[in-house]
Amino acid sequence: MRVFDNTTADADWVADIEVARWEQYGVGDSMPFNAMWYTVRPGSTSPADRHPEVELSIVVQGSAVVSSDSGSVVVERGAAFLIESDETHTVENRSFATPLLVFSAYWMPGNA
Amino acid sequence: MRVFDNTTADADWVADIEVARWEQYGVGDSMPFNAMWYTVRPGSTSPADRHPEVELSIVVQGSAVVSSDSGSVVVERGAAFLIESDETHTVENRSFATPLLVFSAYWMPGNA
Repeated sequence: MRVFDNTTADADWVADIEVARWEQYGVGDSMPFNAMWYTVRPGSTSPADRHPEVELSIVVQGSAVVSSDSGSVVVERGAAFLIESDETHTVENRSFATPLLVFSAYWMPGNA
Repeated sequence: MRVFDNTTADADWVADIEVARWEQYGVGDSMPFNAMWYTVRPGSTSPADRHPEVELSIVVQGSAVVSSDSGSVVVERGAAFLIESDETHTVENRSFATPLLVFSAYWMPGNA
C-alpha cells in the first residue's frame, strides 16, 4: 500500500491555480492514467483549458461550477465530472471562504 | 461533459458498506479503469477484501484507517491510497458521526 498526501505534495502555480501533479510519485508505470490535485481559491476561476486527454475529476472539498461548450453545471463535493478530449473547460469556485480541491485522472482517449 | 452525482447513484449494500459502482453509467469503454464510490458508516469497517485489480482510492469525506499486510495508516480527506494486486485490505471509519466516503478507481495490473 502507498499513501499520497495532498497536504505535503509538491505543487506549482498555474495562473491562480495550485497544481500538484502525480509525476512526483513515480507511479506512472503502474497506473493507466496520469493524476493531479488542483486547488481553486475562493472567488477564483481556472483559465480556460483544452487538451487531447480525457479528464475525470472528483470534487474533494468545496463546490465547483464547471463550464464547457455544453453549458455550466454545479458539481458538489463527492460528485465527478468527465471532460471529453479537446473540450474547452473552466472550473470556478464561487465560495467566499472554502478552497475548491479537485482530484483529476486523465488519459489519452485511445488508451481506454 | 458529463456529471456523475454520488447522491443519486444506484447503490448496493455489501455487508455494512454502501457501494455505488460506475457500471451504471455505461462509461466503461471510454475509461481505462472501473470506478465506484463507497460509504463506510461511523464506527464501521469494510470486510477484508482481496482482488487482482490494483485500486486507487481518494477519501472524499471523513477519514479512513486503511489496514493491509503492510500495516495501518490514517488517510485524511483529500489524500489517496493505492492497494496493490492481491493485497488484502480493510477500511475503517473511526468517527462517531461522519460517514466515510471514498472514490475508487481500479484496473487489472497488466492494463497500466
